[in-house]
Amino acid sequence: MTDQTAVGKVYLVGSGPGDPDLLTVKARRLLDEADVVLHDKLPGPEILDLIPEDRREDVGKRAGGEWTPQEYTNARLVELAQEGKEVVRLKGGDPTVFGRGGEEMVTLAENEIPFEVVPGITSAIAGPAVAGIPVTHRDHVSSVSFVTGHEDPTKDESAVDWDALAATGGTIVVLMGVGKLPDYTAALREAGMDPETPVALVERATWPDQRVATGTLETIVDVRDEEGIEPPAITVIGAVADQRERVVEFLEGA
Amino acid sequence: MTDQTAVGKVYLVGSGPGDPDLLTVKARRLLDEADVVLHDKLPGPEILDLIPEDRREDVGKRAGGEWTPQEYTNARLVELAQEGKEVVRLKGGDPTVFGRGGEEMVTLAENEIPFEVVPGITSAIAGPAVAGIPVTHRDHVSSVSFVTGHEDPTKDESAVDWDALAATGGTIVVLMGVGKLPDYTAALREAGMDPETPVALVERATWPDQRVATGTLETIVDVRDEEGIEPPAITVIGAVADQRERVVEFLEGA
Ligand SMILES: C[S@@+](CC[C@H](N)C(=O)[O-])C[C@H]1O[C@@H](n2cnc3c(N)ncnc32)[C@H](O)[C@@H]1O
Ligand SMILES: C[S@@+](CC[C@H](N)C(=O)[O-])C[C@H]1O[C@@H](n2cnc3c(N)ncnc32)[C@H](O)[C@@H]1O
Repeated sequence: MTDQTAVGKVYLVGSGPGDPDLLTVKARRLLDEADVVLHDKLPGPEILDLIPEDRREDVGKRAGGEWTPQEYTNARLVELAQEGKEVVRLKGGDPTVFGRGGEEMVTLAENEIPFEVVPGITSAIAGPAVAGIPVTHRDHVSSVSFVTGHEDPTKDESAVDWDALAATGGTIVVLMGVGKLPDYTAALREAGMDPETPVALVERATWPDQRVATGTLETIVDVRDEEGIEPPAITVIGAVADQRERVVEFLEGA
Repeated sequence: MTDQTAVGKVYLVGSGPGDPDLLTVKARRLLDEADVVLHDKLPGPEILDLIPEDRREDVGKRAGGEWTPQEYTNARLVELAQEGKEVVRLKGGDPTVFGRGGEEMVTLAENEIPFEVVPGITSAIAGPAVAGIPVTHRDHVSSVSFVTGHEDPTKDESAVDWDALAATGGTIVVLMGVGKLPDYTAALREAGMDPETPVALVERATWPDQRVATGTLETIVDVRDEEGIEPPAITVIGAVADQRERVVEFLEGA
């Protein structure tokens, strides 16, 4: 009846934090070669501009409608691959860091679609790093924890345990944490963390309009408001956040 | 008397986990253009082979001698930049993740050397990802912690608090954790983690001879011994480690 089309392949690709120079060699090549690139807004304008308009589909817009955006994206990935296409699913940062990459892998496997993961540079590490802040430091910290500031309201189990995070003694890096900054900085102080603990906010890391604001667990909410820091931004909490002041004079691109 | 040589610049560059295709566009360019590349063995043979021999210096070898390797590297970075050179300090993964990048930044700033950080893909995220394991998952975990398994013996403060890490309920990713696997898996069980918690070991992630071994908090030490897993390897502990089994059949490069 119909042609037997060979199934295509899906690449789950991280874009890095936004600077096209921080795309991997492989991601750069796949953006040129793929039949279709499914993306949302997080990779940022400079990277999205590299993809010809007739080969990209924005799957981040569909808020209403019958499907949630993630269900739509899952179905579209399967559909395109079944048409025999080479598909790139482009995600901001790394696809597996608060990026739904895990769910997309399972959807693809369940639908028998071959896929590959192409890691990208997560904003959670690169954001602090380009601002002069190492997330780990031999003298200060033996661990770093990445956590969402914007808890999924439909999830009852596994809420963020700010007491336990404070108890690790390590650096805490919060993603999606601009809006709820007052809540979790208060929770960390209540958990016994020193109110003088350094905190940095890195907004639009590696974008042309990157900004950095610094304060302490006590002052950072006021700093956020005075500077008008908005998403996307990374919050870094811990002794390492102080390092920016020691290096920024010689740090280029900061 | 002598010429006033303009000071050079140092790039603290992450190589990613080892596959040259996972270098960033910027790292790839800097490896071609730098006057000197200071490296150790962690970037792996495929990436080191890209650098002409007359422009690379292995700073990972010097174990004995007057200086510790890190002091030697710090001094050499400063010396080369003061000679006016463009210097790449190439580190495995990302320079700021258990990579001494923070110390190198401070050394450079104290010596008034301009520098730039060029983030790389950390093995701590990419290792699990290419094995089919997302370090975060909307349904399971709201946080992921990266921790060293090989505590600096000269450091008395800030030892790893395995109780607190267990209490976060998030994914735990251990670097430098092959040798001490028996110690910290025991510590996590004593901290109350379910002995059935899935664990994966990803050895030489993205290298041509990558290997993955899976078990539980109870069985993984035996698995390590049977499979002969050796450093460098990443240990992933948590519900997400199970996902590999669900996707591996369709996961290319795994
Ligand atoms: C849904 S999460 C996705 C994270 C992404 N997968 C990553 O690895 O970077 C979105 C959050 O990532 C962070 N983010 C992403 N890109 C950023 C950037 N260029 N600068 C600062 N934060 C960024 C912000 O915290 C934002 O709220
Ligand atoms: C000193 S730490 C440096 C980590 C590095 N800066 C990073 O971001 O990946 C060395 C440890 O990194 C991990 N590692 C580095 N490259 C790896 C690879 N390709 N596969 C698995 N583990 C790796 C291992 O746990 C190793 O013991």
